[in-house]
Amino acid sequence: MVEKRVASRALVPSFHVMNILDRVAQLRTAGHDVVSLCAGEPSGGAPVGVNQAAAELHASGVSLNYTSAFGIAPLRERIAAHYQRWYGTTVNTENIAITTGASGAFMLVFLAAFNAGDRVAMARPGYPAYRNILSALGINVVEIPCDASTRYQPTPELLDEAQAEHGHLDGLILASPANPTGTMVDRAELEALVAWCDAHGARLISDEIYHGITYAPSSEPDARGVSAVEVDPTAVVISSFSKFWGMPGWRLGWAVLPNDLIPGVDALAGNVALCAPAPAQYAAVEAFSEAAYAEGDAAVAEFARTRAFLLEALPRLGWGEVAPADGAFYVYADLGPWLSVWETSTAYCAALLEEAFVALTPGPDFDAEDGDRFVRLSFAAGYDAVFVAVDRILEFQARHAR
Amino acid sequence: MVEKRVASRALVPSFHVMNILDRVAQLRTAGHDVVSLCAGEPSGGAPVGVNQAAAELHASGVSLNYTSAFGIAPLRERIAAHYQRWYGTTVNTENIAITTGASGAFMLVFLAAFNAGDRVAMARPGYPAYRNILSALGINVVEIPCDASTRYQPTPELLDEAQAEHGHLDGLILASPANPTGTMVDRAELEALVAWCDAHGARLISDEIYHGITYAPSSEPDARGVSAVEVDPTAVVISSFSKFWGMPGWRLGWAVLPNDLIPGVDALAGNVALCAPAPAQYAAVEAFSEAAYAEGDAAVAEFARTRAFLLEALPRLGWGEVAPADGAFYVYADLGPWLSVWETSTAYCAALLEEAFVALTPGPDFDAEDGDRFVRLSFAAGYDAVFVAVDRILEFQARHAR
Repeated sequence: MVEKRVASRALVPSFHVMNILDRVAQLRTAGHDVVSLCAGEPSGGAPVGVNQAAAELHASGVSLNYTSAFGIAPLRERIAAHYQRWYGTTVNTENIAITTGASGAFMLVFLAAFNAGDRVAMARPGYPAYRNILSALGINVVEIPCDASTRYQPTPELLDEAQAEHGHLDGLILASPANPTGTMVDRAELEALVAWCDAHGARLISDEIYHGITYAPSSEPDARGVSAVEVDPTAVVISSFSKFWGMPGWRLGWAVLPNDLIPGVDALAGNVALCAPAPAQYAAVEAFSEAAYAEGDAAVAEFARTRAFLLEALPRLGWGEVAPADGAFYVYADLGPWLSVWETSTAYCAALLEEAFVALTPGPDFDAEDGDRFVRLSFAAGYDAVFVAVDRILEFQARHAR
Repeated sequence: MVEKRVASRALVPSFHVMNILDRVAQLRTAGHDVVSLCAGEPSGGAPVGVNQAAAELHASGVSLNYTSAFGIAPLRERIAAHYQRWYGTTVNTENIAITTGASGAFMLVFLAAFNAGDRVAMARPGYPAYRNILSALGINVVEIPCDASTRYQPTPELLDEAQAEHGHLDGLILASPANPTGTMVDRAELEALVAWCDAHGARLISDEIYHGITYAPSSEPDARGVSAVEVDPTAVVISSFSKFWGMPGWRLGWAVLPNDLIPGVDALAGNVALCAPAPAQYAAVEAFSEAAYAEGDAAVAEFARTRAFLLEALPRLGWGEVAPADGAFYVYADLGPWLSVWETSTAYCAALLEEAFVALTPGPDFDAEDGDRFVRLSFAAGYDAVFVAVDRILEFQARHAR
């Protein structure tokens, strides 16, 4: 028998969060009370109306067939109206593709926008799945090393440097609020990045899944986040029901596509995905009711309370530099002096989980070069969970203090 | 502004069925009574217990988070038990990955098993998404022209010929029952194909989504279909809840992975998909109850009744050669003499839809070279729909007869 091969492109790094979640599940099965702050999962669940619609849909026993590749019209219309509501911007329904989570949008958009061998830039630290999907598709990832000096976001100057070093950039992935740092770009910064992309023919992919989960006063302009659709008709915007609407497991997201990418994404979607989950599509129509928006805002107010507690607790934790948590529900922090005890954040997080039953995510998931000094703490699990976790972390660190 | 490019690999053909479905929806919105026999969508809906479980889950308002990348343990265990029940074969839970439909499994498995530039063979006519996903990933598709002489299935001789013409084959996609033809390979034929793959180091990907929807007497051995897991420990088996269990819109499927592909698919799944839809996973545990199996069998009995009616009606339709519909719910037929009226099946299907409001799928979706003589009729919509459609088709044809 001639041996069969495993494709070298399958050798992408695991998204370690998924492995940590598995270990959390094991520990819980073994009876341990684990506080899981490793995943970006809001604890509140879907809006009441969405759950009700889904329950009624399934109770009716209706046959749930494939939808159009871009999704059901009523949901696409609600999303278009959402852009009017939050951003005062008109988006045509034809430009909206419902996808299987933001993840499904990334796959389709990366395939439609970039060929194998193209170069796409992204901030480091950044969401690892960008990098890993891109490299599985043969697209070259150009990491832009970002630090506190630019609020962990790329700038035109950093893009110039990257292009000088690596060659022409075909695309830029921007995340604002970003994962893992939570930092945002403001309108002027976004416009400067769009101008750079226009000048160089680079396609902007704007990950806006954390929009709405922001902590500036709502009276401020652009408090929800600035959408790339407001400033760049050639950009792709990717968003999701997983965060503001608390529906991560439902696997429902969307893309706002520029006109030139519609035919390609449509053809790919009909082959690659067929359609996004139909029950979630029908139920998510209820995510745009006044009540559901109010529930989302209440969840954000609760995130804000948790964030305030956490920011106040940070000095007691004795960690180092912390990225400004403008939005999302993450704190990305250098472990500072504690690195003299554990050396790496990976070792720190493993010990913390096994000894104190608190799950954080070590930085290498987001930054393979410098990440092993950082941890990401997701406060999406809620105030009580974070309150308990801080106590346990303090006790854990005190036990190991030299 | 420098123009931004659309990736050439996005230029895959649309899956035309999805476009026809859109036209069906338009016609229905305009008030027309359309009989849609173009998609492979069973009309019966999910098993009662699955719908109940989903309704209760959503009514409880529980927060639905990401699951493990390979899915929830109880569902993976039920699927393992399903292989014992239907095939008398032991499959380890560790080898089972829950995916976002069979579509999600194809993407992950093609990425994990094949590099860009590899050659993968598939029958023509065949399911177009295989070809289109593979080519979007830079994998070379080698189409094996198949006809009635081999029941539209590949054979070792055809693979020898293909390899002689195109070079070393890295993989073979087999579908039994096949889409669009419904034809199956028996155990001896499968073993011969596995032996060929073993001798040449080609990975077998066995699409078994139509297993259980078969028309041989249940007393016959292998009446449900022969699974590649029974004969090839290096094969990948892909299956789905969409067909036997009537859950196409739920987007839930699975792969049985050989050991060597588990790490790669796991890493890719955690990046590309995160997980399959969680509500569907929890509810689908109920798809393996005795009651749910009985509902599936009753649906198959109804398909059999519809199939018998249709096979009996075929002579009256005056079409040409028809592939033996061993399984699935398709009839793939040469239009025979009617091609002298319409010239192509594409023209025939367009006229049939616009004039008689019956949607069939023209063959080019499945066979870009010879398909424009064939139509695929899906009888999944049920007896009444097919009964009405046959009447309308007869009247439509009579109106155009020369």
